[in-house]
Amino acid sequence: MARLVKRTLQEPSRYVIEGKEVWLCKCGLSKNQPYCDSSHKLTKGEEPGKLYWYDDAGKRYETADSFKGIRMF
Amino acid sequence: MARLVKRTLQEPSRYVIEGKEVWLCKCGLSKNQPYCDSSHKLTKGEEPGKLYWYDDAGKRYETADSFKGIRMF
Repeated sequence: MARLVKRTLQEPSRYVIEGKEVWLCKCGLSKNQPYCDSSHKLTKGEEPGKLYWYDDAGKRYETADSFKGIRMF
Repeated sequence: MARLVKRTLQEPSRYVIEGKEVWLCKCGLSKNQPYCDSSHKLTKGEEPGKLYWYDDAGKRYETADSFKGIRMF
């Protein structure tokens, strides 16, 4: 009961929710979803055309080509 | 410049943003991020302990065990 999804954006978005400024995660890596926890800094240096994943420690890996068709965001 | 992230939640969350009711995606599959587009319905029937991915057409696949360590949400 879990799934992998692809994220291409990096920077969070600012919203005002119930009168309070919040930053919502768009990189997909935040451990405080839907809020930003600064994890997008991990994505610095990702190369165009490559697809990565990150383990719980924040270490970056490249994925196999078989995942290139995965649902986009 | 893209990455795979793991999503375990399914149902969206309701927020009031700038006075308007919105539903934010938590399943990760919405094509209208950060908003829900009802794609969580695709996750119905996912089995505990299994890890899936969905292609752009919304078709479900099981992933290889090598991705089980991927960053959680």
